[in-house]
Amino acid sequence: MRPTIGVFDSGFGGLTVLRELLSGVPDAHYVYLGDTARLPYGSKSRETIVRYALSSGRFLHEHGAELLVVACNTATALALHEIRAELPIPVLGVIDPGTRAAARACAAAALGQRRGVLVLATQATVESHAYARSCASAGLEATEKACPLLVPLVEEGWMPDGSRADTSVVTSQVLRIYLGEALEQAPATGAVLLGCTHYPLLRGAIERTLGELGHPVPVIDSAQATAEVVAEELGVRRGGGPVTPGRCEFFATDSVAKFGRLGTRFLGRPVEDVRLVDLGG
Amino acid sequence: MRPTIGVFDSGFGGLTVLRELLSGVPDAHYVYLGDTARLPYGSKSRETIVRYALSSGRFLHEHGAELLVVACNTATALALHEIRAELPIPVLGVIDPGTRAAARACAAAALGQRRGVLVLATQATVESHAYARSCASAGLEATEKACPLLVPLVEEGWMPDGSRADTSVVTSQVLRIYLGEALEQAPATGAVLLGCTHYPLLRGAIERTLGELGHPVPVIDSAQATAEVVAEELGVRRGGGPVTPGRCEFFATDSVAKFGRLGTRFLGRPVEDVRLVDLGG
Repeated sequence: MRPTIGVFDSGFGGLTVLRELLSGVPDAHYVYLGDTARLPYGSKSRETIVRYALSSGRFLHEHGAELLVVACNTATALALHEIRAELPIPVLGVIDPGTRAAARACAAAALGQRRGVLVLATQATVESHAYARSCASAGLEATEKACPLLVPLVEEGWMPDGSRADTSVVTSQVLRIYLGEALEQAPATGAVLLGCTHYPLLRGAIERTLGELGHPVPVIDSAQATAEVVAEELGVRRGGGPVTPGRCEFFATDSVAKFGRLGTRFLGRPVEDVRLVDLGG
Repeated sequence: MRPTIGVFDSGFGGLTVLRELLSGVPDAHYVYLGDTARLPYGSKSRETIVRYALSSGRFLHEHGAELLVVACNTATALALHEIRAELPIPVLGVIDPGTRAAARACAAAALGQRRGVLVLATQATVESHAYARSCASAGLEATEKACPLLVPLVEEGWMPDGSRADTSVVTSQVLRIYLGEALEQAPATGAVLLGCTHYPLLRGAIERTLGELGHPVPVIDSAQATAEVVAEELGVRRGGGPVTPGRCEFFATDSVAKFGRLGTRFLGRPVEDVRLVDLGG
């Protein structure tokens, strides 16, 4: 029996989580919702975010989701508890899996004195201090660094690995500034945790920049860590025989054309047949 | 009799318009609303933007505004007509004043063949094509260029005239890329129009970059142009005797501390005694 996994985000970033899920749990069916008409969640009040996240979760449950992944850091930080209380299916967020992976990375590197985790995230996620709490409960000390320019840089497609030298320079320099400032503040950093679902697209560049700054620590991708937890939850064994990929349905609450266009970059494969859905204001 | 002028924006950018108003019409009383809980307007649907803008305008009218300035390009583009229809006071937007100033600049430069205006704006304003329509009605041909990185750069305080060389480099390079791309697309540009109320903080750098690109055309600031139209509307004569500045009240719908902190940069003077107001969701 193939499970149907529901995944939602306020926009496109959650597609980096879906990308890892498609690789880690390839034979499941997926139903993805990008609540693009109401993005960004990050600047809204807690009440509003809970309301939006609940309606997104409910929509996916009604569309067959048997397990729900909240692929949005803000919604995980502010609404995970409420969604779990309402929906009769398992609900996973992106924060605790990221923290667990960071703890493993610190342990593996035998960094006894380096229990510091540098969390890169949006302003809203930093202000929620959800990562600081999650890390504290795992015995790690988080330094949370807001990086407001990274989302627009990713959405502009100004990748440092891209083909254009002029835009690459900008993104590389922005990463050097953010990471330089953060490491100065947190020199005992043993791992860097990507606390925004847009950032995995910059992972290679972040690793390179950490090396250039003389601080080559592991970079943990919450998307990947979340996919691993989902695979565990479903008892998926790796390395089995060939699998037939399941269905993948996409819904968005604003322009489906834009969702398809921008989404393809995040998913790393074409995002097609996006359907428009109205969840209200 | 001092008039009371109401000014609103979804956030801080409208303070660049207030700044010009305080200089052009210094003896008026001002009441400013930053609808920060609901920002950005730009990514919302037309219906939602109209609803938000109407409630913001209504609030200022109830707080004594005898003339209303919609100091937000998105709200001007999508809701000016509706606000005018509802409120019994004169209502001015930022788009037509900017276009008029651009037309004057093109005429003054005797650029017979250069009737092209390059409009720099946010994605939402570009997609509304409000500037293209406004320019067309003034006999100008607009090229609208979306510059999504400029707002976060300004909000980060990464000014190219700033004290830090590393952040200056980023903003300068971003401007070179955006302006280079736009001029390639619109070589007959006779003036550059700043179609976002955040951009006046980058005006000097934009002028410098246009020079470096061999295209030193006038840069028109909608904020300044709007203040001139308000002064005309009120029959303010320049160069009179000394004036006693009027009152200036600030309201915001989200964190007043953040509004004061970030607002000071946009207004160019301290933003104090900000009061929190709830306009609903």
